[in-house]
Amino acid sequence: MTKQMTAAVIGLGSMGWGAAVSLLRVGIATRGVDIRADVLEKFTAEGGTSFTSVSDACAGADVVFIFVVNGAQAEDVLFGAGGAVAAAQDGTVFVTCVTMEPSRAVDLAARVEAAGMLAIDGPVSGGSVKALTGEMTIMASGRAEAFDKAGPCLDAIATKVYRLGDEAGKGSQVKMINQLLAGVHIAAAAEALTLGAKIGLDLGVLHEVIQECAGNSWMFGNRGAHIVEGDYTPHSAVDIFVKDLGIVTGEAGNHPVPLSQTALGLFKEASAAGMGREDDAAVAKLLAAKGGIKLPGMS
Amino acid sequence: MTKQMTAAVIGLGSMGWGAAVSLLRVGIATRGVDIRADVLEKFTAEGGTSFTSVSDACAGADVVFIFVVNGAQAEDVLFGAGGAVAAAQDGTVFVTCVTMEPSRAVDLAARVEAAGMLAIDGPVSGGSVKALTGEMTIMASGRAEAFDKAGPCLDAIATKVYRLGDEAGKGSQVKMINQLLAGVHIAAAAEALTLGAKIGLDLGVLHEVIQECAGNSWMFGNRGAHIVEGDYTPHSAVDIFVKDLGIVTGEAGNHPVPLSQTALGLFKEASAAGMGREDDAAVAKLLAAKGGIKLPGMS
Repeated sequence: MTKQMTAAVIGLGSMGWGAAVSLLRVGIATRGVDIRADVLEKFTAEGGTSFTSVSDACAGADVVFIFVVNGAQAEDVLFGAGGAVAAAQDGTVFVTCVTMEPSRAVDLAARVEAAGMLAIDGPVSGGSVKALTGEMTIMASGRAEAFDKAGPCLDAIATKVYRLGDEAGKGSQVKMINQLLAGVHIAAAAEALTLGAKIGLDLGVLHEVIQECAGNSWMFGNRGAHIVEGDYTPHSAVDIFVKDLGIVTGEAGNHPVPLSQTALGLFKEASAAGMGREDDAAVAKLLAAKGGIKLPGMS
Repeated sequence: MTKQMTAAVIGLGSMGWGAAVSLLRVGIATRGVDIRADVLEKFTAEGGTSFTSVSDACAGADVVFIFVVNGAQAEDVLFGAGGAVAAAQDGTVFVTCVTMEPSRAVDLAARVEAAGMLAIDGPVSGGSVKALTGEMTIMASGRAEAFDKAGPCLDAIATKVYRLGDEAGKGSQVKMINQLLAGVHIAAAAEALTLGAKIGLDLGVLHEVIQECAGNSWMFGNRGAHIVEGDYTPHSAVDIFVKDLGIVTGEAGNHPVPLSQTALGLFKEASAAGMGREDDAAVAKLLAAKGGIKLPGMS
């Protein structure tokens, strides 16, 4: 690199924050955008440059990461009033790290490129703990030029950068399939542990034994621990899976996805019962209540 | 031990065979019972003693392992005409390594003990490859006396022997919960990969990437490979999960198990479509056919 690289991170939630501090850690000048003053103050203390305006942060940036909640917000950040694309210099790489409909990812990338920019469809996985240490996984697709330019930034935030092809959409497609599995596995963990409680098993022992058996999943290990401990502090919320499994069933169209539909029904029901912002493992409380039993953490 | 121990293994299918040769490997005199002459011949060649009669094999045995397909068969082996319990000496330990209704496991153990014998409710996990090398997992419950006596045999066939309490039924309960998860995860892997194929993803890449992400499960790794390769050679068959998820929904009673019910519906449908004896991953072919697409291995 002949000049110091500048990155911008739009949205300093748990994943965006982790990405932004990981960029700073490797010496990349990093601008952070959020609406929360306390978060921006903390980001300045970390050595970043804080902005409330998307367009101010994007002017002169080389690579812009978008860490917002859904596709509609990403579209607004990119193309809305005071949006990122209009403010950026030609050739800026926009990396959309958002779980959204693959069809929308294709559309946004096409519009970004039509404006003279580069696009990477790059949803992430790994959770907030790995985000903080620069160890996310990125499921990414886009043109080689975009990867060449954004490479040092991608390597700063992720240990695994999967290159899934030149076309936008592939990254979001793989992420969608990951979320299908993740959502079904969370609901399955909830169903398994709730039935275990119903028949009188010690949940801690059950959780330990199953992790050594063929019934294990990453989510059973991770979210199962929340259920065993009765701790529903949101790491990822019920409403995230209402959204993500909604994307799955929507994009599937006529193709059969019966388990996704069943799991989506549970997340929707949990959300309607007031648990939308609790940890996604709270579907266990819904099933327990329906079955007339109490799990740890239920009053 | 003051005298050489004698074990009997009833049912030399893939798991029973593995247990029997693992017992021989550590020097325990082992009797094998099966109805297939070729299997018995092979067992004799391994150094075992072969029987076609359950009662002959059980007379004088110290520990009897029962590796049959379901609870009804186990009941027949124990208490039917020419059955094991009537032929055995007092204090023989009967280890039922069968996935069955926990309520039935409790009943059988009570009747075994009423006849002056000892009982271990000991379903296994791990698959035929680990069975062969003496590396199964046993989810076991029963009285300390039974474990003391059967200990050397259990250690010969398993690297993990979980002691889940003194009461019969606990082993079968934990195994039932494991099968709930395993069955739902197989169906979820099928749904995920089939949708991936539908939207045009490379299944090999998808399978590889997801295994590094939060959507992974033991079954996604293992059975997902069968789907990617289009290889439905039965390691465990569709009909096993018709049985095991049927046990889950039956024992759950009024308690909600919506994902188990959805997955059971798929396994039943695959069985009705003629795939009952194929690998359980064949639910993917069912979903693909319903969605109008072809997976590897589909003509």
